[in-house]
Amino acid sequence: MSDDLSDQIRQLAVQAKTASRALAALDTGDKNRILHAIAEGLLARSAQILAANARDLEAAAKDELSAALMDRLRLTPERLGQMAEDVRQVADLPDPVGTVLDTFRGAQEIDIRKVSVPIGVIAIIFESRPNVTIDAAVLCLKSGNATILRGGKEAIHSNLALAKALQEAGEAAGLPPHAVQMVANTDRSSVPLLCGMDGLVDLVIPRGGHGLIEAVVSSARVPVIKHYDGICHLYLDRTADPAMASAIAVNAKCQRPGVCNAVETLLVHADAAPELLPQVARALAAEGVELRVDAEAARLLDGVVPTVSATEEDWRTEYLDLILSVRVVSSLEAAIDHINTWGSHHSDAIVTRDEATARAFLAAVDSAAVYWNASTRFTDGGQFGFGAEIGISTDKLHARGPMGLPELTSYKYLIHGHGQTR
Amino acid sequence: MSDDLSDQIRQLAVQAKTASRALAALDTGDKNRILHAIAEGLLARSAQILAANARDLEAAAKDELSAALMDRLRLTPERLGQMAEDVRQVADLPDPVGTVLDTFRGAQEIDIRKVSVPIGVIAIIFESRPNVTIDAAVLCLKSGNATILRGGKEAIHSNLALAKALQEAGEAAGLPPHAVQMVANTDRSSVPLLCGMDGLVDLVIPRGGHGLIEAVVSSARVPVIKHYDGICHLYLDRTADPAMASAIAVNAKCQRPGVCNAVETLLVHADAAPELLPQVARALAAEGVELRVDAEAARLLDGVVPTVSATEEDWRTEYLDLILSVRVVSSLEAAIDHINTWGSHHSDAIVTRDEATARAFLAAVDSAAVYWNASTRFTDGGQFGFGAEIGISTDKLHARGPMGLPELTSYKYLIHGHGQTR
Repeated sequence: MSDDLSDQIRQLAVQAKTASRALAALDTGDKNRILHAIAEGLLARSAQILAANARDLEAAAKDELSAALMDRLRLTPERLGQMAEDVRQVADLPDPVGTVLDTFRGAQEIDIRKVSVPIGVIAIIFESRPNVTIDAAVLCLKSGNATILRGGKEAIHSNLALAKALQEAGEAAGLPPHAVQMVANTDRSSVPLLCGMDGLVDLVIPRGGHGLIEAVVSSARVPVIKHYDGICHLYLDRTADPAMASAIAVNAKCQRPGVCNAVETLLVHADAAPELLPQVARALAAEGVELRVDAEAARLLDGVVPTVSATEEDWRTEYLDLILSVRVVSSLEAAIDHINTWGSHHSDAIVTRDEATARAFLAAVDSAAVYWNASTRFTDGGQFGFGAEIGISTDKLHARGPMGLPELTSYKYLIHGHGQTR
Repeated sequence: MSDDLSDQIRQLAVQAKTASRALAALDTGDKNRILHAIAEGLLARSAQILAANARDLEAAAKDELSAALMDRLRLTPERLGQMAEDVRQVADLPDPVGTVLDTFRGAQEIDIRKVSVPIGVIAIIFESRPNVTIDAAVLCLKSGNATILRGGKEAIHSNLALAKALQEAGEAAGLPPHAVQMVANTDRSSVPLLCGMDGLVDLVIPRGGHGLIEAVVSSARVPVIKHYDGICHLYLDRTADPAMASAIAVNAKCQRPGVCNAVETLLVHADAAPELLPQVARALAAEGVELRVDAEAARLLDGVVPTVSATEEDWRTEYLDLILSVRVVSSLEAAIDHINTWGSHHSDAIVTRDEATARAFLAAVDSAAVYWNASTRFTDGGQFGFGAEIGISTDKLHARGPMGLPELTSYKYLIHGHGQTR
């Protein structure tokens, strides 16, 4: 990696740290005024942003990107309008900074308050979707954090145009300079540099596929909050209601198969499987789902729906597609063991009429969100009512599951004395 | 590093993960019974523990360890008694697991509870003090976490004997096997291996000097919570009460100079310095404190007390000794800027009679604990009333400042529906 790039990244980080002090001092009214100015600025500069996006789309067409990737890359006046509306909605959310989290007395009656504060400087490393630029920057701004954004090369012109619009409109309304910065370099060499800025960058949030997450994790000296796989499970217990079981299975697999909270594996209790599995399998097959099944499921589904034999590899695969692995388990414990062994600790559900079984499942499954009689598709900041989401964490430290504005804060202790010494 | 060692560490981690599932299922009564059994076990096995400690002390004497290090290494019947008493006190603390942190309704009225859960497997990497073995293991046990302990070579016999006593007495009372494991290998090669066990080890807490922390940070794929320097500041404002200023300065520097929350730099407002600094300097000099001063402080202290000229290096030095750097600053803002630039974001204090000045200082200083008219020496789990402390974090993610039992937990969302789908 070039020293030039290293110097550039360090300069961005130093500038961001300075900006973060100024951001932390802004009050709620200041921040909301800036957010509304940014929303207007995006609309006012839509011609420039769409022109930049057209350059990215042209390059993408030459590189023969898939239709799905082209769609993710594309900005339209409607999408820009939605983006501006989303910014206004973030302005309407409660300020997560300055919340008194606890008050107590320490030794010698010193008065201690634990108060939420911004984290400081957050680096967001993401791939092709340009909407992440505004989304991430705005959530960090509302929570008083400076951001360094490093997007993918496919969206670089769009990202730079969006960042410029945000900076110009924001700074005219009082946004500190360098509060939101975009790394112009889009090759992988900037990733380890950003992740090595300990003392300047306080947190890295990577958003993207395995390769990106791995590049971040293997080089990070700075704390990382990440989302690995979404290998989610649905377990149909002995006493599962068949209609509910089918409805949840179809919803959790098919409503949007390409997302992290869709299920990848169906587990069915052996006592219920002979009656339940054929019904559920027919409902899934009717939606075009390919079933990869263990020997017992194959036997039960023989002549019912077409199946493919599963291998161990299937238990650890996030298909993100209309494919579902299916396994018949001998007990609740076997189901829990399968989930804790092969899952990604994201979202897992049980369908059962038995409360004791449900409670045992909820207690033992080691995942961010554990469901009783509901679809795993609810693991989402919006569905949880957080109003905004910076991502979903499959980590257990600092933040787990959907991350909203409070998860973008740290805290400090403020102590008031009258001369106490030890 | 040898494949053998790599296999050994992986095996410990796999065993710890299994144990962590069993630990998470224990109720408060189970855990407390085990803790009391461990306290008794330490006393019952004190002959073996002291014999093992004697071997370490003998080796240390041969290696000509300093008297201070020898003292840290030494176990006595009294110290073992205190250790057992500390274990009983942890049993008496509230269980941090199972706390309902929040309840709310998501989309379609799904019922969501956010509940505290153990983190899972925690690796504690520490240096010479054998008391950390019991201390860390017991706090992790109370919070439902499995531990992998990796202590320094100076204390290896003591550590193994303590761990064995804990395991034998604990397991007889229901502690799951492998819930507390000690790495027999004490060379540095086990550190990157432990820190690379992502998916098995959930958190690494290093406790020791710079070299150890750096070895952990540079190799970690697993989240780390750490304590770097304690470069703490005391700022005497224009309106500081002179008697309070002297008392806090002497206490914060001299009561225990070798600890992280002792101050290393004194900042004095230029308007107050001519009168205030000579008084405070005389009080410090009377305690044997060497003063390393900037030009203005040198001028004001000329003929009052002996001083040494400070260089920039002094502003970033954690002396851990009876040495204090001193700087005269032109304003509150200059004091804040010095602290945020040169400090380690640990604990910093202002002495002032002016409330607006104090509030501005508390808001702007970016440290775990910020004090108004009290000594920085209060940054401590015991002084804060946490009942126990696993360490003090200078990080901002997950835990900041003194870390007690709640900081050793994560959380998960438990969702109860009646068949909701999206």
